Amino acid sequence: MEENRPVFSGEVHIDGARIIYVGDGAGAGAGNDKDDAAGAPWDRQIDCQGNLLMPGFKNAHTHSGMTLLRSYADDLPLSEWLNNQVFPVEAQMTADDIYHLTRLAVLEYLTSGITAIFDMYLTPESIAQACTDMGMRCVQVGAANNFGQTTETVAEMFAKLNQKDSLNSYILGFHAEYTCSEELLGRVAELSHRYQAPVFTHLAETAAEVQGCRERHGGMTPAVYLDSLGIFDHGGGGFHCVHMSEADMEVFQKRGLYAVTNPASNLKLASGIAPVAEFLERGIAVAIGTDGPASNNCLDMFREMFLVTGLAKVKESNAAAVDAMEVLHMACVNGAKAMGLTEAVSLAPGQLADMVMIDLQQPNMQPLNNIAKNIVYSGSKQNVMMTMINGKVLYEKGDFYAGSEVSAIYAKAGDIIRRLKA
Amino acid sequence: MEENRPVFSGEVHIDGARIIYVGDGAGAGAGNDKDDAAGAPWDRQIDCQGNLLMPGFKNAHTHSGMTLLRSYADDLPLSEWLNNQVFPVEAQMTADDIYHLTRLAVLEYLTSGITAIFDMYLTPESIAQACTDMGMRCVQVGAANNFGQTTETVAEMFAKLNQKDSLNSYILGFHAEYTCSEELLGRVAELSHRYQAPVFTHLAETAAEVQGCRERHGGMTPAVYLDSLGIFDHGGGGFHCVHMSEADMEVFQKRGLYAVTNPASNLKLASGIAPVAEFLERGIAVAIGTDGPASNNCLDMFREMFLVTGLAKVKESNAAAVDAMEVLHMACVNGAKAMGLTEAVSLAPGQLADMVMIDLQQPNMQPLNNIAKNIVYSGSKQNVMMTMINGKVLYEKGDFYAGSEVSAIYAKAGDIIRRLKA
Repeated sequence: MEENRPVFSGEVHIDGARIIYVGDGAGAGAGNDKDDAAGAPWDRQIDCQGNLLMPGFKNAHTHSGMTLLRSYADDLPLSEWLNNQVFPVEAQMTADDIYHLTRLAVLEYLTSGITAIFDMYLTPESIAQACTDMGMRCVQVGAANNFGQTTETVAEMFAKLNQKDSLNSYILGFHAEYTCSEELLGRVAELSHRYQAPVFTHLAETAAEVQGCRERHGGMTPAVYLDSLGIFDHGGGGFHCVHMSEADMEVFQKRGLYAVTNPASNLKLASGIAPVAEFLERGIAVAIGTDGPASNNCLDMFREMFLVTGLAKVKESNAAAVDAMEVLHMACVNGAKAMGLTEAVSLAPGQLADMVMIDLQQPNMQPLNNIAKNIVYSGSKQNVMMTMINGKVLYEKGDFYAGSEVSAIYAKAGDIIRRLKA
Repeated sequence: MEENRPVFSGEVHIDGARIIYVGDGAGAGAGNDKDDAAGAPWDRQIDCQGNLLMPGFKNAHTHSGMTLLRSYADDLPLSEWLNNQVFPVEAQMTADDIYHLTRLAVLEYLTSGITAIFDMYLTPESIAQACTDMGMRCVQVGAANNFGQTTETVAEMFAKLNQKDSLNSYILGFHAEYTCSEELLGRVAELSHRYQAPVFTHLAETAAEVQGCRERHGGMTPAVYLDSLGIFDHGGGGFHCVHMSEADMEVFQKRGLYAVTNPASNLKLASGIAPVAEFLERGIAVAIGTDGPASNNCLDMFREMFLVTGLAKVKESNAAAVDAMEVLHMACVNGAKAMGLTEAVSLAPGQLADMVMIDLQQPNMQPLNNIAKNIVYSGSKQNVMMTMINGKVLYEKGDFYAGSEVSAIYAKAGDIIRRLKA
């Protein structure tokens, strides 16, 4: 993912949480201070056997705790799904429940080569604890709204969860225009100005949301309205961004906002197809998220990557739209930048050791005509041989090394859904 | 997949190529003629450990030999891709090349739980040999057209490849309306009448194809035109079926034709989104295919299943459209029926032992709120623990038992692409 550096054969060296060397391996390691006379300079050497090391995927929009509601109530109209199925269960969930359900999601992220998540959910501290305990890199985003999380909580978490050298960080945010009063949004803008920090939110997910926004706010569409309040003065972005007006696009360009696309969720909830090719033409950076497991229902960046390009191609009636390398860049690089993870962008000395190994010795990767296209068009979770975060191998050849018994996590999730359904 | 039989806990017993018992296991096996006093009634017992056994997926449209062209030339306009990239390479491929390339595809089918394929490609006998050698169930379909395969070849293969108790069978077919003269199509209709046999073809894949057909044939759309020649008098169906007129729909209803949908290919080549919800409303049976690996680029029924329902939902603006159980029925049952495999439909005594084991102990399958929805919305190749065809385990826990060294198959595919590119 480094510019002008195509796939090459070589070595990656890591010291602690960081990459210290990327190259052909000739002569490297000799001067390393872990080197010793016994010829064992490293704690561990992994022979990648000609498979592919690449930066991990960044899941730039999710609600991890919603694993509980996977396949709980699908194939329903959106309003019925949300109001009659999702909200009543969520209202009963405790911080401890969300701790355990987030751990279940983390296992799935690891199987898909996801090394960082941009998570918006109900209980930031228990989510952070789950990620700390499992070794997952997690950037949370505020979810302020009229009914639940307050801007005070967002400010508190912004201070609390942005500690140096932590796996956790926090970005200002609110749930969506349609769940926030203008007064609340004003306080979000104040926070952004005070901290000179970007703001993210759900934005233009459905046609109904955009229509409602126009009616509530004198004809303004969501990005235009929010920008008029000063919310995006320090950047940020929107999740979904399916139904964008010309004026919304101009706000994204002017403010340098990220459009985080969630194609599987947008299909499953019948929300629409985001204008990804147009984002690219306008120079708007696109990142990719799975959305939560209740509306997807899986946490699989391979499926999302194929959808980003496949849906763009059919939307534009152009089989050349949004090529595979663009999509990989969105998934690995833009996601990291949107989340403020500028040190987890690529495989280069000084970058965080957040990376995955892709099994090229599977039939879906053969022949090796083009590795990037193979990953985007043919790749699946089955190709993830190893997921490393912060220099630690958390998933390797189907086994998890994330600090908990997998069966205990499954059992806990089962207990919670049984209790909440009772 | 048996009517009125939901997921239950029990046993499946197999003798040779067939299922002999499905039930709770109480008392079963006692009367089996393999039973003996030593208490070892079976050659092998597999403890499924609470995971799911289900009928295998039927890939109802593919061109296996095109593995060679996976990621060879993507992100190009359709005509450029086909004329400048695909056709020149295909023109050089030998029957032996296609034998080896089909074997590569079979490996991938096994990883995705695909137990039968409906294959249309250039060299029927070498394709049949590849499937025989690997243990794959393969129904080939004729590809008669003006430039290559003749109706004489189709008739010859129909006689040759329809032997009792073979893994191979053969169905009449031609490439597409736009590659066949009316005279050739008349000969196909004659074959269908002579054998009282169904006919399949590519149909209404692109808007340009439909427009061309109207111009060539006095305003008739493809299904209407072909039906006017008597092609569908004994049933059959169409591959793709994206751009269907009202009159085309009526032909499908009247003749009981199968609509085989290929959603990933239709996205990647920017062909459009098939009207799957409307097929269901009209009682038209839908099956699912991956299409060939040059236009997909993978052979993954999980991705296709999600796309079938996800694209229907967004096309209809209705999150309730085409529910998960319908999709599973398409993938397992309708595919089999379209291909004439009425004995490979479900898990029931007398049916062929073509089945898969799905790993429910993966994070994407937890919690177990609804197994069918988990498979369709969350499932991936990573969940395929075992693929059995004709009573033989060909893939289990990541290892292949399909009669060839995997590395030799990969090496051969690499040799072929290097030779043809040279």
